[in-house]
Amino acid sequence: MDSAGLPSLPLVSVLSLLACSLQLLAAGLLTRRYGGRSSPMDKWILLWLFYDVIVHVTLEGPFVYMSLVGTVETSEGPLAELWKEYSKADSRWLVSDPTIVSVEILTVVLDSLLALLLIHAILNKKYYRHFLQVALSVCELYGGWMTFCPEWLTGSPHLNTSSWLHLWLYLAFFNGLWVLVPVLLLLQSWLFLKSLTPPPTSRKKL
Amino acid sequence: MDSAGLPSLPLVSVLSLLACSLQLLAAGLLTRRYGGRSSPMDKWILLWLFYDVIVHVTLEGPFVYMSLVGTVETSEGPLAELWKEYSKADSRWLVSDPTIVSVEILTVVLDSLLALLLIHAILNKKYYRHFLQVALSVCELYGGWMTFCPEWLTGSPHLNTSSWLHLWLYLAFFNGLWVLVPVLLLLQSWLFLKSLTPPPTSRKKL
Repeated sequence: MDSAGLPSLPLVSVLSLLACSLQLLAAGLLTRRYGGRSSPMDKWILLWLFYDVIVHVTLEGPFVYMSLVGTVETSEGPLAELWKEYSKADSRWLVSDPTIVSVEILTVVLDSLLALLLIHAILNKKYYRHFLQVALSVCELYGGWMTFCPEWLTGSPHLNTSSWLHLWLYLAFFNGLWVLVPVLLLLQSWLFLKSLTPPPTSRKKL
Repeated sequence: MDSAGLPSLPLVSVLSLLACSLQLLAAGLLTRRYGGRSSPMDKWILLWLFYDVIVHVTLEGPFVYMSLVGTVETSEGPLAELWKEYSKADSRWLVSDPTIVSVEILTVVLDSLLALLLIHAILNKKYYRHFLQVALSVCELYGGWMTFCPEWLTGSPHLNTSSWLHLWLYLAFFNGLWVLVPVLLLLQSWLFLKSLTPPPTSRKKL
């Protein structure tokens, strides 16, 4: 692994990572508060979903706002600083790139709503739980594809992969999380539907 | 409705629309051949899915190929002419726009595969039918959003809405189909899962 950047880890990186850790802590507290009667697996899923909503609303929400009224580059304040820090890895986030902003509008509005409804569905064992789980997971994965594929097609001129921090933590880890977990959620939904569905001969037709 | 363009409907428009009609006819023949034992509603869904695959593979597949090896603008042949005709309504399709091509790669590769598997699942009453139906529908809707939102955010400089043919047939009808039908398919999956799932007290936990 390239260790360039480690000796001079800037304060804004540390503060940004601290903010992300606090979001995870908040998700953990919410899971403990509301998920007491859920199965161990559902507790992990609730932890993810609370974290998912918190990140979408408190980090990506302000990004969408800044990008629609101006750009991250011309914005000020702690959240603008956080996005300027992330933009060192992918400079499209600085300049209201229309594709990135389109993905993020849907992520903030639709994905947050789906995740909140899914939390409700899990806690109250609703029949539409796996409908929402599949829909949310596909949205997250599609968003990941649309974030990176247009950039790859043009030779990745906006990505900075020269330091381990930008490549492995900002780009790979923080985006990879939203690939890995949705894939696991899709797998769980697939297995649940398999266990739930009676053999074809007795299935009720719609 | 603006009737501009009607008196001079070009031959390439007529041929393009004829090609689309032939695709629907092919989908109808495939549904008749394979869907004989399916319910009336499933026959309509099979008709759509065959049409969906045929369009993705025979129209959008060549678009992706032309856009990756060059552009539609620099390509020749009947399919290039068809896409040049559609590009009169949305000029991004002429020039290998990275966002459009990214959506189309996923549409051709993933959506076609999901639709084929869904056809198999419907014909053979597989437990994963509605998993695939939800996933495919969300992909189609997300693709529609990503096709138009980046353009709307920048004031739609590439859209030509000056004639009824371009606005209502090419843009509204041919894109609206891929909004309307996926929404109906999502509704059908929701209702099926509702009818299938036993009350929470007797539900098997995963």
